[in-house]
Amino acid sequence: MAKMGQGEEQVNVLSLWVSPFSMRVLIGLEEKGVRYEYQEENLDPKSELLLQMNPIHKTVPVLIHNGKPVNESLIILEYIDEAWPTSNPLMPSNPYDRAVVRFWADFLNKKFFEDAFYGILKTEGEALEEGKRYMLKYLGYLEGELSARRGKPYFGGEQFGYLDIAFIPYACWFHSFETFGKWKIPWESEFPRLQQWMKKCMRRESVKKILPDPLKVLEYATPFRKKFVTSE
Amino acid sequence: MAKMGQGEEQVNVLSLWVSPFSMRVLIGLEEKGVRYEYQEENLDPKSELLLQMNPIHKTVPVLIHNGKPVNESLIILEYIDEAWPTSNPLMPSNPYDRAVVRFWADFLNKKFFEDAFYGILKTEGEALEEGKRYMLKYLGYLEGELSARRGKPYFGGEQFGYLDIAFIPYACWFHSFETFGKWKIPWESEFPRLQQWMKKCMRRESVKKILPDPLKVLEYATPFRKKFVTSE
Repeated sequence: MAKMGQGEEQVNVLSLWVSPFSMRVLIGLEEKGVRYEYQEENLDPKSELLLQMNPIHKTVPVLIHNGKPVNESLIILEYIDEAWPTSNPLMPSNPYDRAVVRFWADFLNKKFFEDAFYGILKTEGEALEEGKRYMLKYLGYLEGELSARRGKPYFGGEQFGYLDIAFIPYACWFHSFETFGKWKIPWESEFPRLQQWMKKCMRRESVKKILPDPLKVLEYATPFRKKFVTSE
Repeated sequence: MAKMGQGEEQVNVLSLWVSPFSMRVLIGLEEKGVRYEYQEENLDPKSELLLQMNPIHKTVPVLIHNGKPVNESLIILEYIDEAWPTSNPLMPSNPYDRAVVRFWADFLNKKFFEDAFYGILKTEGEALEEGKRYMLKYLGYLEGELSARRGKPYFGGEQFGYLDIAFIPYACWFHSFETFGKWKIPWESEFPRLQQWMKKCMRRESVKKILPDPLKVLEYATPFRKKFVTSE
């Protein structure tokens, strides 16, 4: 990496355009107004730089700040918030509120992604039906969590923040889940607050800029899905 | 929960004595000098209080601070650090160092626990051998990470901190891993820094108080293991 003069900084992101984890990092940087260089990683094969910058997990996204790598999307988001603290705080200031948003972001990674996202994307038959049930159950949890904000529009309260950024990338995937599941997610009747939240998030510059078109996501997801299901 | 006068606070921990995740929370509280009430949860059946305080994961540990629950051990550790900020900081102050310790703590949860801990505890035959290989590989990573501290004794540098607390509970489990694996972990030849680190940690009041006797852990682990392996 080139040497830099004092005060200059170099920010690179190794990313896959369709990855909800990558989108988190990009939205975080956009919210902070940080300039960065984007490097697409199609993962097949994984680039030398990716293997060098994330030797343990070998996954995107990676944030490289002045040559030093940060891995894992939620850890990167907290890093972004702490390394560029002067504008748009992403984390709440109160310790309990911080624990709550960390809990739900961790839930998205552990449960939502595995049981609902992959539960629909990679399966068919009864497993697919189970994935859909998980999706409804987990959206119900998140609807409840948003209700607990008592009329405030974001998971971050009045501020679009860490948990909003962690969750909003899934918005461009729901069309694929509906297509593969041959159903409609009952936003209006079951998850009206999430629906409002999503609309509001989609009007933000950062989100509009980073989230790809749901039809393009479907175009990517369809052959990906074919590696796992045999009946379609 | 009893009503409290101003300035008083109530801290309860729902815990399982043998759980490395529970131990993290208890060591964190001990390091901060926070008084707490301990409630053992044998998980069979799960208590009403546990189900109410951690309805999503239904797991220990849970920290209940003035009636409000915090779940997931690493999130609880950060909460402890932020809710009681005046003594013994557990997290480094520099954003990059924070990201690094978060990365390795997350690695312990995702990889070390699943591939090495369960990889030995719950398996036999070739799977057990694989668990042992993971253990050696991952201990090698952590030895390297400790080397990167350049002679400082802890993962937290001069300070015993978040990552030290996240990892040290495994110290009381290694005897079980050696017994089940019918081998010896080559601490002296392969992981001398980890060995020194472990000795130093074991002399701390907090760690001495919380970590159970490795023989007692083995006594617990032996019948637990029998649920998964058939040949012993």
